[in-house]
Amino acid sequence: MSSSPTFADVQAAGRRLEGIVVRTPLLESQRVNARLGGRLFVKAECLQRTGSFKIRGAYNFLACMSDSDRRKGVVGWSSGNHAQGLAEAARLMGVKATIVMPADAPALKVANTRASGAEIVLYDRVKESREEIGLGIARKAGATVVPPYDHPWILVGQGTAGLELAEQAKKLGVTLDAVAAPCSGGGLATGVALGVKGLSPSTTVHAGEPAGFDDMARSLAVGRKQRNARLSGSICDALLAPEPGDVTFPLARKLLGPGLVVTDDEVLDAMEVAFREFKLVVEPGGAVALAAALAGKLPVSGRAVAVVCSGGNVDHDTFRRALERRPDA
Amino acid sequence: MSSSPTFADVQAAGRRLEGIVVRTPLLESQRVNARLGGRLFVKAECLQRTGSFKIRGAYNFLACMSDSDRRKGVVGWSSGNHAQGLAEAARLMGVKATIVMPADAPALKVANTRASGAEIVLYDRVKESREEIGLGIARKAGATVVPPYDHPWILVGQGTAGLELAEQAKKLGVTLDAVAAPCSGGGLATGVALGVKGLSPSTTVHAGEPAGFDDMARSLAVGRKQRNARLSGSICDALLAPEPGDVTFPLARKLLGPGLVVTDDEVLDAMEVAFREFKLVVEPGGAVALAAALAGKLPVSGRAVAVVCSGGNVDHDTFRRALERRPDA
Repeated sequence: MSSSPTFADVQAAGRRLEGIVVRTPLLESQRVNARLGGRLFVKAECLQRTGSFKIRGAYNFLACMSDSDRRKGVVGWSSGNHAQGLAEAARLMGVKATIVMPADAPALKVANTRASGAEIVLYDRVKESREEIGLGIARKAGATVVPPYDHPWILVGQGTAGLELAEQAKKLGVTLDAVAAPCSGGGLATGVALGVKGLSPSTTVHAGEPAGFDDMARSLAVGRKQRNARLSGSICDALLAPEPGDVTFPLARKLLGPGLVVTDDEVLDAMEVAFREFKLVVEPGGAVALAAALAGKLPVSGRAVAVVCSGGNVDHDTFRRALERRPDA
Repeated sequence: MSSSPTFADVQAAGRRLEGIVVRTPLLESQRVNARLGGRLFVKAECLQRTGSFKIRGAYNFLACMSDSDRRKGVVGWSSGNHAQGLAEAARLMGVKATIVMPADAPALKVANTRASGAEIVLYDRVKESREEIGLGIARKAGATVVPPYDHPWILVGQGTAGLELAEQAKKLGVTLDAVAAPCSGGGLATGVALGVKGLSPSTTVHAGEPAGFDDMARSLAVGRKQRNARLSGSICDALLAPEPGDVTFPLARKLLGPGLVVTDDEVLDAMEVAFREFKLVVEPGGAVALAAALAGKLPVSGRAVAVVCSGGNVDHDTFRRALERRPDA
């Protein structure tokens, strides 16, 4: 694969993932449609293996590695969905995985990652660097580092969610005016854009981000990479990458429409609607694109629009906060 | 169709529902499998249009009616999932629907049913009979009464959920040892048994019920219809039919294994696991089969088992009760 991945690369990834990942449904709610005056489709990637889309990219990456590299194992650092996706992809392919996680990561996330058989290396968030530790392990074992988003193999793997979505809409006889996907480093959003536009070139694809962490929206607006001022402080814990990636940003400039930015309250409202109308458990970061559609920032009226709900790994307390909201009342 | 429906009738219903109902996914959790020592599949019918499987039977019923009967409209009585499924099926087919609902039904359920364009007739639960009112409307307009479960057209429509489930398992290369579905009057459980056993005759199919409302389990055990002592008092508000149906029970005797009976606490535990591990919103009545598998009443160890999670129409307060539980802690 060249450094600028194509629609054909997404299609090839789709063939690798066939029978491995869940073909997640494209859902619709008659009541939500009536309220918005258009058709809103939800691509339910929260139902994916390990509770998020991340296994698509991770599995595709492992499947693209050489046999000899796979035998030496893989290394990743993440306290969230990438860790679980990578660990499970490695289990499915019989590859040894080492995941570097902060010692203060939630016990549940550590246990979930360990449950896939990965070796967990804990580090001190204050005194140590996870990159240094990860690279050290990789060097010693000859293992391959699997990045969370900034690699063509990852990006086209995530893009299979967009390819599926476009195929599902086509089967329903629907031409999508717009698609939106959550965006942290940009792997999902640019991959989805590749996958969607390959089948449906007229569809506009948007990246959704939380307010204060809208590096992609600002970078697209000015035409060069912008950083976020902060590294934490949004309810969307999965969307806090500091800036767009070197692989993802050039593609984003070519493929994406203007960015969509939503508040934490809009995200909680969207989680409540996902619960009530779509019967889905969506985590905050997974709900930003849905939030943009429900808040009117991504117009649905008179149009056909699809949003990716990218993950469902949310703790009980945060979900309870969402259940307290009544956005339509 | 003869009064004893067949696998071919389920297949025919499947063709009628193609492109109308959601082909809901068959989901699996690596962690749940590891804990149970087998493979547990969840057929996520809570993601179906209107939030439950009920639209399958209702739409199939309407599709089987004659054109002249359809022009005269349909009547149903229900305060729950059947009302919403029937109203939406009627909207999709352009048929006039009248739904008789208790005046004290939750405002949300009335609004949801009205949102599909059905005419709502409210009645006084204490002083009036919904059957009399419904039959009166039907007589006057020449409309057809659509029963909630005890009719071959309804039963084989619900059975398409079982047919899909069996096809999905086959595609995964899995031979199912057992399947379980929630049971009120028996339309879903017997329909699913027809659909599953047509493709996979060796699979045992079970009906799941809440404790105290286990009329089907007791009826199967003694070989003739038994009634429940009470008409209310379980958290599973969708599973309170007083006894098995006249159409469903003979089929149940032929097709079903022993009944599975679960407590309200086991149901709440299952709803929490559906939230945490499957990212699904499941209502109490929809979770009884999952509850039986998780509580060890339907053995999963060393086997491949599928359960239907049949609906997701649960209010916020009940869901909060489920979130307070930690069955694995």
